[in-house]
Amino acid sequence: MPAPPQTPRGVATYQRIVDAATKEFAEHGIAGARVERIVTTARTNKAQLYAYFGDKDQLFDTIFLGLMDRITNAVPIDADDLADWAVRLYDEYLHRPDIIRLATWSRLERRSSGHLAETHEDHDEAKLAAITEAQSAGRVRRGDPFDIMAMVIAMSMAWSPVSTVYAATDDEPETVHESRRALLRDCVRRATAPE
Amino acid sequence: MPAPPQTPRGVATYQRIVDAATKEFAEHGIAGARVERIVTTARTNKAQLYAYFGDKDQLFDTIFLGLMDRITNAVPIDADDLADWAVRLYDEYLHRPDIIRLATWSRLERRSSGHLAETHEDHDEAKLAAITEAQSAGRVRRGDPFDIMAMVIAMSMAWSPVSTVYAATDDEPETVHESRRALLRDCVRRATAPE
Repeated sequence: MPAPPQTPRGVATYQRIVDAATKEFAEHGIAGARVERIVTTARTNKAQLYAYFGDKDQLFDTIFLGLMDRITNAVPIDADDLADWAVRLYDEYLHRPDIIRLATWSRLERRSSGHLAETHEDHDEAKLAAITEAQSAGRVRRGDPFDIMAMVIAMSMAWSPVSTVYAATDDEPETVHESRRALLRDCVRRATAPE
Repeated sequence: MPAPPQTPRGVATYQRIVDAATKEFAEHGIAGARVERIVTTARTNKAQLYAYFGDKDQLFDTIFLGLMDRITNAVPIDADDLADWAVRLYDEYLHRPDIIRLATWSRLERRSSGHLAETHEDHDEAKLAAITEAQSAGRVRRGDPFDIMAMVIAMSMAWSPVSTVYAATDDEPETVHESRRALLRDCVRRATAPE
């Protein structure tokens, strides 16, 4: 059974493994990730990694769930301004392209249908409650709150690091980002406005 | 240099390789695909595969470009009814989840930024011309035609096989699909309507 670190030194090692593994999984996926590279980057060894996390799949789970929480907390939904939420997500993908790449590797390698995460209810509960409340108050269109959430997230990803059309990066000119943000904001505003 | 088949028997083998490789790449990605499995499924051998296609990467290129053309031809844009185009794309993803998975493997494994395909101009030219014309005629909103295209495609993918929220499948009840299609149609119509 994996066990968390008990000492400050252990905590630091644990965090180095998480950082190195996040980068490795984002770049190479689950099957393509190499524990050897992770422990080299994290200046530790395989035995230590397995002691903290279990096997490579469990390491991926730990990181994946942590990042799902991170994106929910770093970019909290505002159901009264879904357009602004979408634009904040656009910016988060520029800032942390690894998170959305990691989620997509998980989709391709692990769950080809249905919800992305087994724990989806925990992640979605607050978002769905917020959308439902905004609908009741007449500030968001009618429709299944889950589907509206899926639609707004999809719109925020039009130029995401996993787009099949164009993947934006933060080294593009600010005017380009501003133009996309303006279109995104307007499209989400229109699509989700009450009837 | 790879050379195409010259005999009817060769053409049949070539096609079996394409079919087997499409399935293999869609399931396992480029790095994860095994030429051994492809030739077994296609009832041929590695020498024959290499003679027709070159190496594994070239085989992927051939299949990827063929599928990009297929989706453009099977689901032609109608810039006067972008909402209907989006719904037809939704249906195409249900019918052929492998295509969009394959495109996404390519994004993750090959091109982490910018356009997905080097040949994007060939694939996008007709779509962009159609959107520009519809804008001139006052039937589509203002905005960069490329970004509008990216937005509509993103919306069509809200429940796609690579969605980071929910991946729809064709074995779900028809009422579920109808509800998503209605929301998608209405959201795209609103988002792309002229001012």
